[in-house]
Amino acid sequence: MEQQLFIYNTLSKTKEVFTPITPGFVGLYVCGPTVYGHAHLGHSRPAITFDLVFRYLKHIGYKVRYVRNITDVGHLVADADEGEDKIGKKAKLDKLEPMEVVQTYTNSYRHDMEKLNVLKPSIEPTATGHIIEQIEIVKKVLAKGYGYESNGSIYFDVAKYNEDYKYGKLSGRKLEDLLSNTRILDGQDEKHSSADFAIWKKAQPEHIMRWPSPWSDGFPGWHTECIAMSTKYLGERFDIHGGGMDLLFPHHEAEVAQSCATLGHESVNYWMHNNMVTIDGQKMGKSLGNFITLDQFFKGEHPLLQQAYSPMIIRFFMLQAHYRSTLDFSNEALQAAQKGMERLFKSIEVLDSLSASTESTVDIASLKAKCYDAMNDDFNSPIVIANLFDGVRIINSLNDGNEKINAADLVELKKLYYDFVFDILGLQDEQAAEGNNEVLSDVVDLLLNLRMEAKANKDWAMSDKIRNELTAFGFEIKDKKDGFDWELKK
Amino acid sequence: MEQQLFIYNTLSKTKEVFTPITPGFVGLYVCGPTVYGHAHLGHSRPAITFDLVFRYLKHIGYKVRYVRNITDVGHLVADADEGEDKIGKKAKLDKLEPMEVVQTYTNSYRHDMEKLNVLKPSIEPTATGHIIEQIEIVKKVLAKGYGYESNGSIYFDVAKYNEDYKYGKLSGRKLEDLLSNTRILDGQDEKHSSADFAIWKKAQPEHIMRWPSPWSDGFPGWHTECIAMSTKYLGERFDIHGGGMDLLFPHHEAEVAQSCATLGHESVNYWMHNNMVTIDGQKMGKSLGNFITLDQFFKGEHPLLQQAYSPMIIRFFMLQAHYRSTLDFSNEALQAAQKGMERLFKSIEVLDSLSASTESTVDIASLKAKCYDAMNDDFNSPIVIANLFDGVRIINSLNDGNEKINAADLVELKKLYYDFVFDILGLQDEQAAEGNNEVLSDVVDLLLNLRMEAKANKDWAMSDKIRNELTAFGFEIKDKKDGFDWELKK
Repeated sequence: MEQQLFIYNTLSKTKEVFTPITPGFVGLYVCGPTVYGHAHLGHSRPAITFDLVFRYLKHIGYKVRYVRNITDVGHLVADADEGEDKIGKKAKLDKLEPMEVVQTYTNSYRHDMEKLNVLKPSIEPTATGHIIEQIEIVKKVLAKGYGYESNGSIYFDVAKYNEDYKYGKLSGRKLEDLLSNTRILDGQDEKHSSADFAIWKKAQPEHIMRWPSPWSDGFPGWHTECIAMSTKYLGERFDIHGGGMDLLFPHHEAEVAQSCATLGHESVNYWMHNNMVTIDGQKMGKSLGNFITLDQFFKGEHPLLQQAYSPMIIRFFMLQAHYRSTLDFSNEALQAAQKGMERLFKSIEVLDSLSASTESTVDIASLKAKCYDAMNDDFNSPIVIANLFDGVRIINSLNDGNEKINAADLVELKKLYYDFVFDILGLQDEQAAEGNNEVLSDVVDLLLNLRMEAKANKDWAMSDKIRNELTAFGFEIKDKKDGFDWELKK
Repeated sequence: MEQQLFIYNTLSKTKEVFTPITPGFVGLYVCGPTVYGHAHLGHSRPAITFDLVFRYLKHIGYKVRYVRNITDVGHLVADADEGEDKIGKKAKLDKLEPMEVVQTYTNSYRHDMEKLNVLKPSIEPTATGHIIEQIEIVKKVLAKGYGYESNGSIYFDVAKYNEDYKYGKLSGRKLEDLLSNTRILDGQDEKHSSADFAIWKKAQPEHIMRWPSPWSDGFPGWHTECIAMSTKYLGERFDIHGGGMDLLFPHHEAEVAQSCATLGHESVNYWMHNNMVTIDGQKMGKSLGNFITLDQFFKGEHPLLQQAYSPMIIRFFMLQAHYRSTLDFSNEALQAAQKGMERLFKSIEVLDSLSASTESTVDIASLKAKCYDAMNDDFNSPIVIANLFDGVRIINSLNDGNEKINAADLVELKKLYYDFVFDILGLQDEQAAEGNNEVLSDVVDLLLNLRMEAKANKDWAMSDKIRNELTAFGFEIKDKKDGFDWELKK
């Protein structure tokens, strides 16, 4: 590739040229779900955003090791350092072993991702599967003097860290502001400062999820898992770390701090954050209770939904916005996405039926360049889609005979649409998959109309033949006053 | 349930009445695959066997916690205590991080299991996810005096254990025989005796998969993972442990030994072992190189396969043999299974079309009792299937009008077939799912035959109408000398 890929780096707040650590290879880490409920529309945004990144990096020739974790321990209610574990709480409510909760919602998440045509990551590690690695990080933090023990729990000492490194460099927050904006700690608190965060928590007696450690039987803090798993599978320095903007602070800031504290340097070259899905202007979130699950979208089963929205409508809806813009849920927007996508797939059908001329009056190279330019400009999928719609006009003009295309250009045009629509945007033609049922319906209607004509012409032999054969195929045919009804019995 | 369920217990070598530890609940642990290659026919046997057990236990009203693990570390080549890790070796060959190998083949295994309609377990834990738990077991073995350290590795001292407990009680092997049948250890060996087995192995410098432990950076022995995960999720005593007969010794024997050594008692009440799939009389195994993968069966892509065999043919083939019998692969047997299964589904179609009379001349209660008796006799699926075929004769007699059935009996008969065929045996009607394509083909052929007749009658209006409408629906029609060809273009 001669073209350069630009990525907006949250760390520098600018678009930077992407240069991988090892030429030809990319290490990509993305924060996956905390599996204590079914995935909702908000969860599909990072999944689809980084699926687009993964697909495009592969498309332009990189070998990508894509690690997306499953958080199955340590994520406490309200994202806090105190209180119940989200999974443990759900397990108690459902009277299940926590790992049964984890398995149920991990299965559900994988199922939804498959429907959305989100590719499986190269490695899908779990937080509980990396307790030792997290304990090793806690040990290093303590050894370097950036942590302290309090009642068997270990906290990261943000003030101490801030003396040597700048805390807040990723999120842009300042320690002074953080401290002045939070409550004063009373003498009961285990933390020295409200800015500190837990990296190991001693388990209360009733806490089921617990492991032995040098400090207590307990469990790792939520912020330690990703740094443990990312550096284990991608190395102490790796290319891209992605996640939702809601994870920027404190989760990712805490990762940067632990990385600097233990390794003496940052691990991540490019931090990427997708913006939120909103509903009535507020972030859609499980904790906020204002969510609609993906399965509810697919089935149209929620009071706020006017209809069912198929997985590809959801995917197209997401891709029609740039990943760094907010995206507000509305039925109107989803219905517009549906119409747009149908128009796109219709044009691919037309494209497939075009024949080549000896000359070209259309400029395919320029269309192609615009699509790649958009992707290279921080994965700008809405611009790609706009360009593909410009191409639809070209395709229609070719079909109408108002423009001509030669054989080489036609190959290029088809390749462009197949590459971008199916491989890079990852869309699937759902109607084609369901198409046979529709066609079957059309064909049977045609036959029964012929039979009605035959009856009108008193051609009983023909009329009976059609009826008998269809019945033999398993159809049940009901004659009505003004036509017919039929059903395929199975 | 008034009926008693009998299970053949490998430990007692008799069929025993099944009595769960907690009334109404069953804890079931099954050894899953070592994920370093695609699953083959042999792997589907334990999966389908214990899926049948899982389904039946649920059917008769138990709440079952089913744990099936993924072995992703510690399983060394040739199932030995020395040599390369199976996954590490594959990772080296494919130039991948071991966890990428694990992810690839775990995905592949899950995909195949879904095709075989094998239900997902309640918890699917991994060996690498439970290193701490395994280290804790090693510590306990050492504390109880049944293990020793040698060069940073820890071995289970079988002779010492045998003084207090009987080693070999599960497999029936005797320590004396084991010792006299194996090579004499030379002075170089880390083990004191060839019967001893590794529970922790120090990693060689080139070994990638390694974790810190009190003894060395290393990895757990293969035999420790299952006892760690089963007791963690099912308790120190649980109901059923299943697996292939090839795991009986040394794997399961070593589990019993570690359980007694650390807890002072056995953990498992009922040990169940499925027999092997053989090919030319030899066990089909990845290590033996004589395997055919499930995907090759589904696609018919292997020199030994005369055709493709769908997932349900494989499943029916497995269920036609009792799980404790060997099952020899042959094309003839699979084709017979296919015919049998088609006959069964055909009869369900007929059953659905039956109407009730005022009286019954058939004995449904007796048929039902025989099916449950067979399942209660150590999950005897071939006898269930034989009874369902006896029922096919009843269904056909009812259809022919030679027998009569009243409404209540008809409900019972339908429920019997739906319960056993779909829920308990877990079969699916693949033809019904594919049926629409077949029907479409039939209907289009009928239309084009009508068109040929119309042409023969010089009814050009009719002939053109059929052609034009089909073309509009997306069909491409090619007239041939003696008929026609058509294709649905998409």
